[in-house]
Amino acid sequence: MPLHKAKDKWHAALKKINFSKAARHTEIEVEEALGRITTAPVFAGHSSPSHNVAAMDGIAVHFADLASASDASPVRLTEKQFKAVNTGNALPLEFDAVVMIEDVHQVDNGEVELAIPATPWQHVRTIGEDIVATELIIPEGHTIRPIDQGAMLATGVTTISVKEAPRMVVIPTGSELIQPGTTPEPGQIIEFNSRILAGYLNEWGAVASGAFPVSDDKEKLQEAITDAAAENDVVIINAGASAGTRDYTSTVLAELGEVVVHGVAIKPGKPVILAIVDDTPVVGLPGYPVSAILTMRLFVRDMINDFMDIKPMEPQWTTARMSRPVHSAMGVDEFVRITLGQVGEELMATPAGKGAGAVMSLVRGDALLTLPVGSEGAGAGEEVQVELLRPLSDVQSTLVAIGSHDNIIDVLANLLHKGQQTIRISSAHVGSMGGIMAIKRGEAHLAGSHLLDEESGEYNISFIKRFLKGIPLQLINLCYRQQGLIVAKGNPLHITGLNDVASKNLRFINRQNGAGTRLLTDKTLRDLGITPDAINGYDHEEYTHMSIAASIANGSVDCGMGILAAANALNLDFVPVAEERYDLIIPKQFMEDIKIMALLELIHNSIEFKTLVDRLGGYSLRDSGNLIYEQ
Amino acid sequence: MPLHKAKDKWHAALKKINFSKAARHTEIEVEEALGRITTAPVFAGHSSPSHNVAAMDGIAVHFADLASASDASPVRLTEKQFKAVNTGNALPLEFDAVVMIEDVHQVDNGEVELAIPATPWQHVRTIGEDIVATELIIPEGHTIRPIDQGAMLATGVTTISVKEAPRMVVIPTGSELIQPGTTPEPGQIIEFNSRILAGYLNEWGAVASGAFPVSDDKEKLQEAITDAAAENDVVIINAGASAGTRDYTSTVLAELGEVVVHGVAIKPGKPVILAIVDDTPVVGLPGYPVSAILTMRLFVRDMINDFMDIKPMEPQWTTARMSRPVHSAMGVDEFVRITLGQVGEELMATPAGKGAGAVMSLVRGDALLTLPVGSEGAGAGEEVQVELLRPLSDVQSTLVAIGSHDNIIDVLANLLHKGQQTIRISSAHVGSMGGIMAIKRGEAHLAGSHLLDEESGEYNISFIKRFLKGIPLQLINLCYRQQGLIVAKGNPLHITGLNDVASKNLRFINRQNGAGTRLLTDKTLRDLGITPDAINGYDHEEYTHMSIAASIANGSVDCGMGILAAANALNLDFVPVAEERYDLIIPKQFMEDIKIMALLELIHNSIEFKTLVDRLGGYSLRDSGNLIYEQ
Repeated sequence: MPLHKAKDKWHAALKKINFSKAARHTEIEVEEALGRITTAPVFAGHSSPSHNVAAMDGIAVHFADLASASDASPVRLTEKQFKAVNTGNALPLEFDAVVMIEDVHQVDNGEVELAIPATPWQHVRTIGEDIVATELIIPEGHTIRPIDQGAMLATGVTTISVKEAPRMVVIPTGSELIQPGTTPEPGQIIEFNSRILAGYLNEWGAVASGAFPVSDDKEKLQEAITDAAAENDVVIINAGASAGTRDYTSTVLAELGEVVVHGVAIKPGKPVILAIVDDTPVVGLPGYPVSAILTMRLFVRDMINDFMDIKPMEPQWTTARMSRPVHSAMGVDEFVRITLGQVGEELMATPAGKGAGAVMSLVRGDALLTLPVGSEGAGAGEEVQVELLRPLSDVQSTLVAIGSHDNIIDVLANLLHKGQQTIRISSAHVGSMGGIMAIKRGEAHLAGSHLLDEESGEYNISFIKRFLKGIPLQLINLCYRQQGLIVAKGNPLHITGLNDVASKNLRFINRQNGAGTRLLTDKTLRDLGITPDAINGYDHEEYTHMSIAASIANGSVDCGMGILAAANALNLDFVPVAEERYDLIIPKQFMEDIKIMALLELIHNSIEFKTLVDRLGGYSLRDSGNLIYEQ
Repeated sequence: MPLHKAKDKWHAALKKINFSKAARHTEIEVEEALGRITTAPVFAGHSSPSHNVAAMDGIAVHFADLASASDASPVRLTEKQFKAVNTGNALPLEFDAVVMIEDVHQVDNGEVELAIPATPWQHVRTIGEDIVATELIIPEGHTIRPIDQGAMLATGVTTISVKEAPRMVVIPTGSELIQPGTTPEPGQIIEFNSRILAGYLNEWGAVASGAFPVSDDKEKLQEAITDAAAENDVVIINAGASAGTRDYTSTVLAELGEVVVHGVAIKPGKPVILAIVDDTPVVGLPGYPVSAILTMRLFVRDMINDFMDIKPMEPQWTTARMSRPVHSAMGVDEFVRITLGQVGEELMATPAGKGAGAVMSLVRGDALLTLPVGSEGAGAGEEVQVELLRPLSDVQSTLVAIGSHDNIIDVLANLLHKGQQTIRISSAHVGSMGGIMAIKRGEAHLAGSHLLDEESGEYNISFIKRFLKGIPLQLINLCYRQQGLIVAKGNPLHITGLNDVASKNLRFINRQNGAGTRLLTDKTLRDLGITPDAINGYDHEEYTHMSIAASIANGSVDCGMGILAAANALNLDFVPVAEERYDLIIPKQFMEDIKIMALLELIHNSIEFKTLVDRLGGYSLRDSGNLIYEQ
């Protein structure tokens, strides 16, 4: 079912149960009302000030008594004709002005002498000057701020009627779910979706909580849904990703009530179920967190506003230029997480990973790009409209690093973020050659590169001359680092080098084409006279050192080329092959950019940076920050 | 002391006690960490997925076994060569691809037949595909969102270190303070400031609460401050407005610690005290709520950010044009509350009242205008930069009504605000002639007017022809209403009309020049042959019907001209003088404005509107919504 049709059907079903404006009213203390929404206009209970009040320290007088007062002939007032008052004191009813103490001349017998006439009500805050009793203070449908509480309390209003937010519960389902804090066995999945989902619902204005997971048992699921529907305004089922769980949910919902929509042509999020059980909306979300969140944004967020009859927040859009193409699946509305970078004049948009399970794509994502049904995608260089997920000012303080990954980039990212200017690094790991291409296309502020020129034995420079001709840039060393074979702890297969991988038919894992490590692997293989097809797993490519190491730690492969830091991080062993140079390519147009300057300042002068890198191991910073080449 | 100097001295004093970045770290559960700020980078505890996982329902295979598969010669796999998997199931280590169930042909003996080759790792989410163990997930100084919680929980991180917000307490002082819910006697003031102030501090990121008021007793105040300083990171003293209270605070602070600043050249807010007691900052705020809030914005808001080492929110500025002049007090930085209205192309700024006690000026205020030391103010028509206090989109959905006040405007304001489009009415009560002038200057969308032409006996039209010549507009009737003398309940002075006011020398209260009611008063006086100086209080002017009524209810005057609705609202009696016509003047350029259309729709068709007006009493809606005149 297309998205717009699913939305229409769902709205019709919600209308039938009068879901819109269904929020209950509740009477609460004004003191507890911060952020709540009024359900009735609030009128002042009494005036403020509630009496005429002195606005200065001095004496209260009757202004007419002073009509003739002047320096030449001051007026003398008897004790009965005035009263001493301080700021804030109520003015006795018979007086209609206050004379400042500075202008009062004390004489004998408790009398005073005044040399200036008074105007009516001078230095008096008259009754109701600020708020008059019965005046409208706060209209219906207003969100209470601290100052509104003050205005109400000041005029004797102590309780008001406000809307209750919809109660929602997120029920995770699936026997494979385990609680956070447990280490998952194969096939087990840590249940954290309900917490994320409830977090978003609360952020959007609901009162939501996560329930304990329900296992793949039809009766238990029936009971859980029936109970939840009785106690909540909306029930969210977060199905596990396994087939069994998915089937139970739709079957149970069809038995308990009416399934309005099952399956929507969106990606991610296709298997969404929208149902009504006992006049309560029940939303079955897909199991993958990213699908679940995006589906909830599409179908549940507006429900909260409708329930409370409040205007939804306007989504923030911005225009960006695609740094690389993104292709759309046929026949669905597709929602692509995008990272943004202000690189020179252009706001560049880069897809942050399309997988439904890719939590990090949403952690790192700055914006959402919608590719509607019928769209083939967006081409490189194309201008697109994207919905911002974080403020544009955050995006503008983001340093875009595209290229080869190194753990030092994480260290720098953290040190920059915690600094006063809170610069973020958005780093895309596409290998050294990918970084050079990103610099060429103007997508990145900097690229990390360790490309070995087999002929000269030199790093990076010949590639820059070939691919970045005419682009003024500096090549600055970040570090030297050890490359080698990452192997299991204790090196149980006694691997000594790539020759063993071929001769013993070991399970190898490779880096992608264009990666500096791949060049080093290929060169070493050629030097050893080994052809790629002799390597089992040569075609199994991963994009970062850490992914290589993780596969070895997990036992799914025996070895792969990578850096010592990655082996150390996962407590693996390491067979050194070479030390290589890792440099940063920075176009000259960004050398005065405050973000690049902050980065170079860290590299040059931060003791914390040096200490953290030393702790990682396998690095030498002997040339760090030095200019290697410029053009 | 000038503001900038006071700020410098205060910053120096805070530096001496190392207040900046003083936030404590605390270890909390990730599940409780929403909105908290990390104090250390967070690295993935394990990878996600933690194992290779099937991304489809089907069978796990070894891709190499299917290399030769084709329609012509399908490959047959024995039970040992594959394993049935559902989406989300872990892949046994020996397999490296998944074939979708749709492509699997079941044959006998539990064997399967496949006609398509597989690529390595197809339909498999490989280990660490989303997050690799030890990878940086969240940098230091990051504010936790729901998705960040998800990413941490997904990788086995269950506790993190976050910053603690500064603890703050607001201590109200003054024997005149009483608790909300009590009716104030003369001289008593309801204590609500501490609640408003703590509300703002919490909004700005502190953990703040209000304390019980301390009476004007030096020892009690000493004890309260000493205790509070020991238990909090910042202590706020909200002095009562009376001289005694103010003096105690500064004396006590000087005895307990060091007074850094006492008195700053700002308006409102002059008497602020900034002190350090036992290495704890203590801020003495003025007693008036508006002064207190504005002073807190100047001196305390940044302290919260400094304490937690976070980037302050950028203030939002906008350009507006002054609708009328505002004059600045000499020698101070002055902060003027401004209401804004998007009237045609122009964003018009109108001062919302300058009094320090004017809570409603901040309730209604859309923005703050700063008039720096040395500035003489801002002239009518001058462009000014103002700091927004509410989103510009709210301002743009505001209908600006300037002119004569009528309670029906409050009714309309409430009905419009609660509607789907949430239109606000910003209504300035400046009398009918003030409204006509506002229309002439292009400041208002509409003006309420009831100006009597003594010669013709007609309302409004002759004034429009004279003062709004050449401006295309419509004059639309809102209501007819009774005008008369508002008198005390039971009319104890047996007032029958204005002749009694003169002959019995009663205490009268008048409306301001230009008000329709003032014209009616003047005409009646002339008709009766009474001169203004025969009326006691002729010069005591108020700006709304409700202010007139409030003064009578309070007993400070005996009578004043006004409308029945105002008398009814405060349970007063009413001596009719005449029925008058109250119209709305609307320039034609706004007739297509969605806000004006919504207003006219209400007037024409809303049963709720008619019911509420009937309930007020004294109105006739017989011509309501009818076009009276146009040009």
